[in-house]
Amino acid sequence: MKISELSDRSGLPVQTIKYYIREGLLPKGAATAATRAEYAEEHLERLRLIRALREVGDLPVASVKRIIGAVDDEAVGLHELLGTAAYTLSPAAEPRPEDPDWRSAREDVDAIVAELGWQVSTDAPTRDLLAQAFLALRRLGRPIVWTDLRPYIEAATIIAEHEIGGIPVEGERGQAVQTAVATNVLYEKVLLALRRMAQENVSARRFGDGAEDR
Amino acid sequence: MKISELSDRSGLPVQTIKYYIREGLLPKGAATAATRAEYAEEHLERLRLIRALREVGDLPVASVKRIIGAVDDEAVGLHELLGTAAYTLSPAAEPRPEDPDWRSAREDVDAIVAELGWQVSTDAPTRDLLAQAFLALRRLGRPIVWTDLRPYIEAATIIAEHEIGGIPVEGERGQAVQTAVATNVLYEKVLLALRRMAQENVSARRFGDGAEDR
Repeated sequence: MKISELSDRSGLPVQTIKYYIREGLLPKGAATAATRAEYAEEHLERLRLIRALREVGDLPVASVKRIIGAVDDEAVGLHELLGTAAYTLSPAAEPRPEDPDWRSAREDVDAIVAELGWQVSTDAPTRDLLAQAFLALRRLGRPIVWTDLRPYIEAATIIAEHEIGGIPVEGERGQAVQTAVATNVLYEKVLLALRRMAQENVSARRFGDGAEDR
Repeated sequence: MKISELSDRSGLPVQTIKYYIREGLLPKGAATAATRAEYAEEHLERLRLIRALREVGDLPVASVKRIIGAVDDEAVGLHELLGTAAYTLSPAAEPRPEDPDWRSAREDVDAIVAELGWQVSTDAPTRDLLAQAFLALRRLGRPIVWTDLRPYIEAATIIAEHEIGGIPVEGERGQAVQTAVATNVLYEKVLLALRRMAQENVSARRFGDGAEDR
């Protein structure tokens, strides 16, 4: 297809497509004349992935480039590829190792991960994210206890089994990353909205007019 | 206690405490002299709630005032009080009823809530939040299907039962709101971090070196 059709089908302006080619995010089309190139379905597929990372993941071009590089590098295994995408898409929490309270919270996190036997990298940004939340809870006078954590661990496991279980081992690698974007950004919003809805529902049953417990 | 002790114990500057009194967030102390007032434990408790709403919930003074007003008004039932706090703490999603795609997503949300039999107010902000996520997923070529939603509903229910179940029916109302803040803001971060950790763990088991499925 011509670049105009690629633009129509991807929903991206021709200028943007040319910019992505210059930045090395998208391979050049096959030259058919001095100023003409032919693009294939793979180009469209790649543009959809770039668009998902840019618009849904809200990532800068440099981060998109790093993820695309991992997609194209067959030496990068699927677990590592998903990790690259997930770490890039993760909100950051600044580690503060000079703060003893922060260190203690981070040690709690490490102890919990070890206790669960989860395979989570020592430098995973999620460890710092969790430590940050633990620290804030302690400062609010609500230090984390194991019984409070249990339901969240159970819920996280149910969701992750479903999410990762849905990625085919032998599928197209770009598709796996697109799934990771949808999962980490959009299904995260789905989860948060549903949890708040479920809270309202349980609160209505427990505390509302004509509550069951009364 | 004197205002200086109230300041020490709450961790808030005297100026801030006086500001909250002027704004009507905190009742005046009992006057013991023309320029002196005595403060009680209730003042300290109230300051902790205000601080949680301001710092953890990141709420403007006007929103804190509305929630405090509901805490103090015994005519407001516990379910309504928790709803006031939760709605104020909820991220906002602008409804876009003029967009047919948005309307269709919102109709999907309403159908799902009805199907689940959940008691969620028609004007709950969570309905618009969920509609927004549904719309974004459809635009990414991944419209929501019931089987994909199931694990999230299950997880949300496990968590909400634990969270709302932990609030005593006959407890101090300010405490219930403080729990809601901790739950909606900080445990939300706990949940998101744990879910991303669980993803990494399941990915390692499925796709990593020495994966179980190989």
